[in-house]
Amino acid sequence: MRLDAGCQIFFEATTPTPVVFMLRPRSGYGQWIIREEYLLQPSVPVVEYTDSYGNLCQRLVVPPGSFQVHTAAMVETADTIDVDTTASYVPVEQLPEQVLQFLLPSRYCESDKLGSLALDIVGEATPGYAQVEAIRQWIQSNVTYEYGTSNASTSAADTAKSKIGVCRDFTHLGMALCRSLNIPARMVVGYLYQLEPMDLHAWFEAYVGDRWYTFDATQVEPKGNRVTIAYGRDAADVALSTQFGAMQLLEMKVWVNAKSV
Amino acid sequence: MRLDAGCQIFFEATTPTPVVFMLRPRSGYGQWIIREEYLLQPSVPVVEYTDSYGNLCQRLVVPPGSFQVHTAAMVETADTIDVDTTASYVPVEQLPEQVLQFLLPSRYCESDKLGSLALDIVGEATPGYAQVEAIRQWIQSNVTYEYGTSNASTSAADTAKSKIGVCRDFTHLGMALCRSLNIPARMVVGYLYQLEPMDLHAWFEAYVGDRWYTFDATQVEPKGNRVTIAYGRDAADVALSTQFGAMQLLEMKVWVNAKSV
Amino acid sequence: MRLDAGCQIFFEATTPTPVVFMLRPRSGYGQWIIREEYLLQPSVPVVEYTDSYGNLCQRLVVPPGSFQVHTAAMVETADTIDVDTTASYVPVEQLPEQVLQFLLPSRYCESDKLGSLALDIVGEATPGYAQVEAIRQWIQSNVTYEYGTSNASTSAADTAKSKIGVCRDFTHLGMALCRSLNIPARMVVGYLYQLEPMDLHAWFEAYVGDRWYTFDATQVEPKGNRVTIAYGRDAADVALSTQFGAMQLLEMKVWVNAKSV
Amino acid sequence: MRLDAGCQIFFEATTPTPVVFMLRPRSGYGQWIIREEYLLQPSVPVVEYTDSYGNLCQRLVVPPGSFQVHTAAMVETADTIDVDTTASYVPVEQLPEQVLQFLLPSRYCESDKLGSLALDIVGEATPGYAQVEAIRQWIQSNVTYEYGTSNASTSAADTAKSKIGVCRDFTHLGMALCRSLNIPARMVVGYLYQLEPMDLHAWFEAYVGDRWYTFDATQVEPKGNRVTIAYGRDAADVALSTQFGAMQLLEMKVWVNAKSV
Repeated sequence: MRLDAGCQIFFEATTPTPVVFMLRPRSGYGQWIIREEYLLQPSVPVVEYTDSYGNLCQRLVVPPGSFQVHTAAMVETADTIDVDTTASYVPVEQLPEQVLQFLLPSRYCESDKLGSLALDIVGEATPGYAQVEAIRQWIQSNVTYEYGTSNASTSAADTAKSKIGVCRDFTHLGMALCRSLNIPARMVVGYLYQLEPMDLHAWFEAYVGDRWYTFDATQVEPKGNRVTIAYGRDAADVALSTQFGAMQLLEMKVWVNAKSV
Repeated sequence: MRLDAGCQIFFEATTPTPVVFMLRPRSGYGQWIIREEYLLQPSVPVVEYTDSYGNLCQRLVVPPGSFQVHTAAMVETADTIDVDTTASYVPVEQLPEQVLQFLLPSRYCESDKLGSLALDIVGEATPGYAQVEAIRQWIQSNVTYEYGTSNASTSAADTAKSKIGVCRDFTHLGMALCRSLNIPARMVVGYLYQLEPMDLHAWFEAYVGDRWYTFDATQVEPKGNRVTIAYGRDAADVALSTQFGAMQLLEMKVWVNAKSV
Repeated sequence: MRLDAGCQIFFEATTPTPVVFMLRPRSGYGQWIIREEYLLQPSVPVVEYTDSYGNLCQRLVVPPGSFQVHTAAMVETADTIDVDTTASYVPVEQLPEQVLQFLLPSRYCESDKLGSLALDIVGEATPGYAQVEAIRQWIQSNVTYEYGTSNASTSAADTAKSKIGVCRDFTHLGMALCRSLNIPARMVVGYLYQLEPMDLHAWFEAYVGDRWYTFDATQVEPKGNRVTIAYGRDAADVALSTQFGAMQLLEMKVWVNAKSV
Repeated sequence: MRLDAGCQIFFEATTPTPVVFMLRPRSGYGQWIIREEYLLQPSVPVVEYTDSYGNLCQRLVVPPGSFQVHTAAMVETADTIDVDTTASYVPVEQLPEQVLQFLLPSRYCESDKLGSLALDIVGEATPGYAQVEAIRQWIQSNVTYEYGTSNASTSAADTAKSKIGVCRDFTHLGMALCRSLNIPARMVVGYLYQLEPMDLHAWFEAYVGDRWYTFDATQVEPKGNRVTIAYGRDAADVALSTQFGAMQLLEMKVWVNAKSV
């Protein structure tokens, strides 16, 4: 489906505040950026670079006062995500080198602490896709989605206890559980068509059956029409905005509309 | 200045033809992509990846029949290029590692063969920027710009003899002469505002005074308002279209317009 | 000083166990590997690759039974580490791109939780080297060095409370405190001449005054003659051995001897 | 087989001469460095870095006077090279991204000029391994191996005419012919056990049947026990010594001995 996805973010800074934004999607496997735009108001110098995961990052200093970011893209996306319940576990020694880093614990995914929970959840599921799906369903059924219950320090171990959170927390927990079973998992941030309520979104991918598969613990059913903005180990890597100083996010508007072709 | 730069290319293939395009500019030092679009007709699957220089490359297979590429960008560019006639030669041992590769000879820049010509041209010029500028002016004065006089196999050594060619040949010769003096030089392809006649363009950058400076041997005066699409060692690396099979380029339209802000 | 540094590690596996070792130092800024050796007993196939930080990683599957790794290097090292108490804080917007990742929180460095402790510790110290040195001294004075008091899940926030640990914990705490002040910090694992008791070691580097400086909170005085094996964000990245399965480390011998030149 | 391979090179410089050496083999697919050493006399500061192909490069400035490099490695190598005459041509659109660059022409491999010669040579051979082997055999039969007949500017197109040269020229010609058929080819420099006469050596690899295969046009039969030092597009990339200034290579000793295990 062809989507028009974008967001408008309103900031207020009291002092010059360095930030790194990740708000520009790239064409890649599964999505093609037909058109995109990126506007800053007031206009300031920006440097764009690629991080070690290949994400486009925009560095700039937000000046004191009101500041506005507008970014939008028309993207050709896949209507469905691939599902293969028979995709099998890939033994660590057969994983591609660049995938290995997604086995490690990270700031918000203390996989070293969640091994026994993971074993409980997956039970007799066949190693691989079926295990990840069991984890996804367990989170979907057992964790309550509610805004304002978690914050920027909430980690997978926290969510495993509190059983409440938002998409970011669902994702961290799913990844930490996968990694504790030696299944590589990486975080994705982006847009999802018909997300309710509309917002920027996060989900994860797990590496089984020799490729990455998409999993979203916030959704009941597999849903396609996703626009990937960035990949990383967890929210520390792929924050849409990483700011170094006091700056207020006043308001954010997000939209994802179907385009008739 | 804010520019609207773009091109439309019409191909005709008789068999499915794999190609790699480099037609999507990236925001970076000196330019900010405000808006861009990239359309293929008919629509085909594309994979976009980053080459070892950081350029965005689009891989696809052109189907038999007519095929059209349309790409355009609104870009904030600098009105002038930096000029510093006192920027000095950087001894090889002080060059950054990633710059070293631009000292080596390459397919179209046989710097190993042009050392004595380079010494003749630079004469008593101070090592560094002044030498590169002497080379640039020598090419500007001594090589005739004429379409149809060179082809895809023409190299700097060829142009040093024939003294005729197009922007690509001027650039290769400039780079080969710089490298023969141990001055790193890299090729840039992109758009230049008010280029006459309008076309996709090529120029080069030389590393002196601890940074890259822009040089364009096709122009009499230093001119800003350039949009960089790709960097590389020479035209083998940064062809806007590298095709693997028989495909005809029927027509190409290129435009660079000033936008009133 | 020319050092002979090495280690011998004895493992016992009951099932084939995939591992990634980081046990081969590389020549780099500040150290030159004159001679090195790396032996596995029994001999098994190994693949060596470079991770995203540039560290050499050795992948293999440890077979069931006894397994022994022997690695040693003769290295030319610097007798002292650079100290510059006037090196100043680098504003985030002036940091090189590849340094930015070392500002982020990571598995064992929850810098997002330690900001007020860091501010208490640095007090009126001048932003930059002096702050990092205040942090280093505070850890040196307030955290007790004792084996067996921490484990593979212990993080900087844990150590800030327990005030006890080993070199790994001292390092994590130092880095988390630096990052909470927007000073980039990275972990180093390697050898230190005359370390008491001798062992593989960990310390950190902080980026101030436009370069990396070495800090070691386990030592009273600045000490040189270090051999770097690997760099990373924290112990998740630079474990000398990351194993995926049950394998016992039975014994480890480490030596660092001065060579008379 | 376990090999002891090494070389000793004697230089004489009149002025300080920056150089980049590639003389340190790395463990990788197919070889494991058990022990290695690298000595410079007199001792000078060296920086080691990794180029864009992953080769280890040693940067230093050779001081005026006599200078000596000694490098040696004990390496576990494969006794045979893989041969698969049925390995088939990989269509360009199915090649991995990082392999694409080895399709391009380069300084010493003007594949753009050698297409019709390649077609003549391969005749009716099945696309893929069989074509590369036809090219290898044609060179083996038609090009005379003789020292002193070529120089640092000799390219594949030159050798296609002169039909005389050394291992470097054989390799360049083989690669240029492969690339003209859209078969990726890369240069390897290293050691070959029982090479006659003993010297540092060069050969090439071609990408067919979804992997790299080894080809050596200087040898009558496929021969294993090779130690790879560096990979690249051609000799411009993988010169064992790239010097920037006047420095004499006075003498070079090379040895490759079998070790009894």
